[in-house]
Amino acid sequence: MRSKAVQAKAIALGKLAIRATTSAGSGHPTTALSLAHLVTVLMYGVMRWDPARPDAPGSDRLVLSEGHAVPIVYAACTDLGVTVRPGGAARPMTLDDLLALRSIDSFVDGHPNPMLGFPFFDAATGSLGQGLSVAAGLAAAARIDGSAKAIYCIIGDGEAREGQIWEAMDFIADHGLSSVVALFNCNALGQSDRVSPAQDWQSLARKAEAFGWEAVVVDGHDPVAIEQVLRARPTSREARPLCVIALTVKGWGVPDLGGMGHHGTPVTAGGLDAALAALDARARALGVAGIDPGASAAVLTIAPPPAPPASTPATEPVGFMAAVGRNPTVAAAVKETRALSPRRAYGLALEALGAANPAVVALDADVKNSTYADGFAKAFPERYFEARIAEQNMVSAAAGLASGGKIPFASTFGRFLERAFDQIEMAVIGGAGLKLVGTHAGATLASDGPSQMALADVAFMRAFSHVEDKAGRPAVTVLTPSDAVGAYAMVLAMAYSPGAFYLRAVRADLPILYAEDERFPFGGHKVLRCSPNDGPRMVLVASGYMVHGCLEAVEVLAKAGHSVAVVDAYSLPMDTAPVLALAGRGGVVMTVEDNYVGGIGSELAEAAAEAVDAPRVHALAVRTMPKSGRTPNDVLAYVRLGVADIVSAVEAAARNVA
Amino acid sequence: MRSKAVQAKAIALGKLAIRATTSAGSGHPTTALSLAHLVTVLMYGVMRWDPARPDAPGSDRLVLSEGHAVPIVYAACTDLGVTVRPGGAARPMTLDDLLALRSIDSFVDGHPNPMLGFPFFDAATGSLGQGLSVAAGLAAAARIDGSAKAIYCIIGDGEAREGQIWEAMDFIADHGLSSVVALFNCNALGQSDRVSPAQDWQSLARKAEAFGWEAVVVDGHDPVAIEQVLRARPTSREARPLCVIALTVKGWGVPDLGGMGHHGTPVTAGGLDAALAALDARARALGVAGIDPGASAAVLTIAPPPAPPASTPATEPVGFMAAVGRNPTVAAAVKETRALSPRRAYGLALEALGAANPAVVALDADVKNSTYADGFAKAFPERYFEARIAEQNMVSAAAGLASGGKIPFASTFGRFLERAFDQIEMAVIGGAGLKLVGTHAGATLASDGPSQMALADVAFMRAFSHVEDKAGRPAVTVLTPSDAVGAYAMVLAMAYSPGAFYLRAVRADLPILYAEDERFPFGGHKVLRCSPNDGPRMVLVASGYMVHGCLEAVEVLAKAGHSVAVVDAYSLPMDTAPVLALAGRGGVVMTVEDNYVGGIGSELAEAAAEAVDAPRVHALAVRTMPKSGRTPNDVLAYVRLGVADIVSAVEAAARNVA
Repeated sequence: MRSKAVQAKAIALGKLAIRATTSAGSGHPTTALSLAHLVTVLMYGVMRWDPARPDAPGSDRLVLSEGHAVPIVYAACTDLGVTVRPGGAARPMTLDDLLALRSIDSFVDGHPNPMLGFPFFDAATGSLGQGLSVAAGLAAAARIDGSAKAIYCIIGDGEAREGQIWEAMDFIADHGLSSVVALFNCNALGQSDRVSPAQDWQSLARKAEAFGWEAVVVDGHDPVAIEQVLRARPTSREARPLCVIALTVKGWGVPDLGGMGHHGTPVTAGGLDAALAALDARARALGVAGIDPGASAAVLTIAPPPAPPASTPATEPVGFMAAVGRNPTVAAAVKETRALSPRRAYGLALEALGAANPAVVALDADVKNSTYADGFAKAFPERYFEARIAEQNMVSAAAGLASGGKIPFASTFGRFLERAFDQIEMAVIGGAGLKLVGTHAGATLASDGPSQMALADVAFMRAFSHVEDKAGRPAVTVLTPSDAVGAYAMVLAMAYSPGAFYLRAVRADLPILYAEDERFPFGGHKVLRCSPNDGPRMVLVASGYMVHGCLEAVEVLAKAGHSVAVVDAYSLPMDTAPVLALAGRGGVVMTVEDNYVGGIGSELAEAAAEAVDAPRVHALAVRTMPKSGRTPNDVLAYVRLGVADIVSAVEAAARNVA
Repeated sequence: MRSKAVQAKAIALGKLAIRATTSAGSGHPTTALSLAHLVTVLMYGVMRWDPARPDAPGSDRLVLSEGHAVPIVYAACTDLGVTVRPGGAARPMTLDDLLALRSIDSFVDGHPNPMLGFPFFDAATGSLGQGLSVAAGLAAAARIDGSAKAIYCIIGDGEAREGQIWEAMDFIADHGLSSVVALFNCNALGQSDRVSPAQDWQSLARKAEAFGWEAVVVDGHDPVAIEQVLRARPTSREARPLCVIALTVKGWGVPDLGGMGHHGTPVTAGGLDAALAALDARARALGVAGIDPGASAAVLTIAPPPAPPASTPATEPVGFMAAVGRNPTVAAAVKETRALSPRRAYGLALEALGAANPAVVALDADVKNSTYADGFAKAFPERYFEARIAEQNMVSAAAGLASGGKIPFASTFGRFLERAFDQIEMAVIGGAGLKLVGTHAGATLASDGPSQMALADVAFMRAFSHVEDKAGRPAVTVLTPSDAVGAYAMVLAMAYSPGAFYLRAVRADLPILYAEDERFPFGGHKVLRCSPNDGPRMVLVASGYMVHGCLEAVEVLAKAGHSVAVVDAYSLPMDTAPVLALAGRGGVVMTVEDNYVGGIGSELAEAAAEAVDAPRVHALAVRTMPKSGRTPNDVLAYVRLGVADIVSAVEAAARNVA
């Protein structure tokens, strides 16, 4: 009876998925059909959740890594009247909602996206290969919370070619996150071709076993077999995680949609009746035509989620000097040199946050002794997730931790976060509050050379800083501290502010510029030197390491009779008006950046070019490919950003003004 | 005798590697020592090559994926006097060169980089996990050439966590590229911790077998065993590729450098003598102390490369209309609608290039029926490499193909190239002539939603367009065609120009704007509409899809009495002066972009802000997170870039000017 109810339900959902994609005029009904039974067994039977509260704490989760299959989940949510929140107000999902799929005024988007008001999902998916890492993050958050929730993740067989899937397989096995169940949807058909033999079900099973998982092969359209394997999932941390290799049929139930050539192609309006009739015929053939899918709810009862675990309240983290004082090595260095690297300040802040707030978690990619995330790792091992040399998985797992209610800091060299730009964008689309920390940024890294220097990071991140997300915030806020006090304050601010952040921290020790109580509001800047006159000014605007180069340059310039202001522009997006006003009409702003173009130079130039009577803006940046050098100053001179270069650029600009 | 000669040589190279890193004050001597025997056996015995012509065609290749181990290879190159070309002039590498490691005026960089004058290497490495894909590309190029060269790739065990390694393992097995030999350097120690059990040698062997490779475990310090396994490498396409699991000791030969805590740490000047003495002691213990490493050349003879295969000369590709005429479907569509999508033009151009030039090769990531690379795939199967859903491997393999003398076009959705931004940057650092084609770019993709829309691509790529590479070229040239004629011409130009390119192609059919003989020089633009007056002007500047939106907007504006010029700015970097001059002093430039900020708006604003008496620049771009919409215009209106938005922005700017 139960098996027949699942069959009837799966067919009903398949029909809804076909109708939705036909209504949209695009989408992936054939992939949806291959998942009809898997999704039905999960959402109507195995998962412990509540359609009225799809994001209730403690609920089992479903991560649809192959996001294009989403119409089958939308169909189930429609059938169940799952709570949605378009525009913020909660109500049950309706058939009209479903049929508005992919229209501009609908929250029912082409791929899963919680930010649009679809709380059943934890993360935006659609760029393939990322879901299993998100699932790992959700599982990690659940473990911290003491929650026994299960996380089911559906992955396409073709999608399994993405290396990130195997990073996630390792990560989950490494950390014993066996509450994650990976389901590979093996329909053997990709978009442009059959899947490679390297992704056939036998290969996937072999690989999963080699990665330390238990692989179980199942008929993906057999309700009893699916349920049996899912109910036998492991529940102990020591057990091998379960990988279900589900053999499925793309376009299941509709012979005309079988085989190659139907990926991402909806049924035409003219063909709709025939497609739906084919599914009806399949229902008759299976002997489930008489079952009312609506009435099957009596058989397909959904178990509610267990009560949420209690959470521990947060306290205030200690201040910078107290954090310094706790570490004798750092305290001695600060006392002696009045200098400290921003990455070291990150490490101190992260540890202080860890002590103050149980929601703070951290990840790093085998460089925690360079980023200084190692203090946190040692102090809070149960909240630290070593991601090894696999940055993509690290970032998506951080997104999962964020969705699971944590405040995840993910650190590595800024250059290596570039490995995860796609994952960062997906996290941002889904509204995950990532706290990214990229250390060793810029050409001042020096000796290791350009393969290790973050240089295009600022242009990429600034693009997002000018995108308003669905919560009305900058999609990413970029922070570049010029000293350890600033770095410390910014890390605390990142932790306690919603949204995604990128802290760009250089490797070098930098002189401390600010008093401990200095505040660094997002969008702000600091005027470090300013000429007393009221007229047009020459203003050097920099961030991070280059602030110090500018301060050195103004000393030189002062001796030559030039009075030059210096601004520490630590934030993108930047409130540009006061910086431009400081230079004033007829003045000159000169930006100095240890990165490729697209940062504060663009920020101020765009504002100046739009305004009337704005000062001129000259942008110094890295415009030649760097190489190794033994000191930061060697490399800065090579890329023409040394103190002497700044001085001569100012002198040339001053000549042109005069 | 031979084994003893290898031991003596390995120790001599290890000493050089230690001296080099101590001289540099940074670097990774312990990783270098773990590779001493593997590198010696390869470079002094197994590889068929010529130190005087390290890049001679037909030579066996060594790709050092774990680039930080490079001092051991530099040591061998010093010992062998391998030809280097610092600044272009060829000469043998010297001990002085080696000891200048990582200094700013040295070509001996912190990580391998052929662009600096080190032709032994084919690609820049250093960002981990990419070398095996490069090796795959080199092997693919060799197969096309009929060359039997072997490609050896050394990978760290910790590095094997990177998913891209497994993408490459699949790709090599899929395409039968068994001339690639993967050597995993299993020293069990990462940077911040021991490697995970998931990367221990047993796991790596199991995984390699599951990925269809033959895994052979060997003592990585036993010259006889290493040579034996390497000489038995497979030579047929049908054989499983060989994966050598080499058990090694990090810091081999120097007890003080063993265990954790010595990664990336050079021996201090004070400790140098002791470290070298430890290696001498090891030589004595092995009974090889009496062997003069210099004289061992008599035993360690290097076999020369076979003669290079002959290459087929290229001819001229056919023109746009001839290419259209060859495809009846396209010809009919063009005749009827006078419109065609840029991606379709890419497909036509790629096929025309394939027919004309045997060096042109193509890769795609399971979307070849969307990018239209499928025509090439069908016509030239031996030059097409389906990369499946694994963009990172695709891009690095393309870099390898470029190093192997091919002209590699790599296509997928522009959004998914973001998955490979790190790989693109590494290819650019190494000077690989990548021809990247990103289709379905921008918010006009519409129905699939933001997970599939390339929006931050322009900001990232423009950053590189302003970086001069070591050949004096823009590191990347970005081309955004506004019609099929332009797209066709640009694809041909990309193929026949050195350097890296990114073609940004929208999904939609676009009206054809240009005559077949129109030329599109890099850096240029096209004035499509211009007011007759000589005074200040309102100029709309756009690219791609938005050119058409602007042309529609000026029709509307003309009716309201506004005369507005339209510029197609298809190239970044852009020669901005004539565009600014067109608007003139007191004029207004309004840029209109279907991407996040950081593109032509920044390009023109930066130029205008720097100049005296420049026109003002207003930048319209995507500043809100898009979502699905059923038509491009629905989504453009949502992100406030519809025709009506352009019209009102122009009207507002005109009011402010007046």
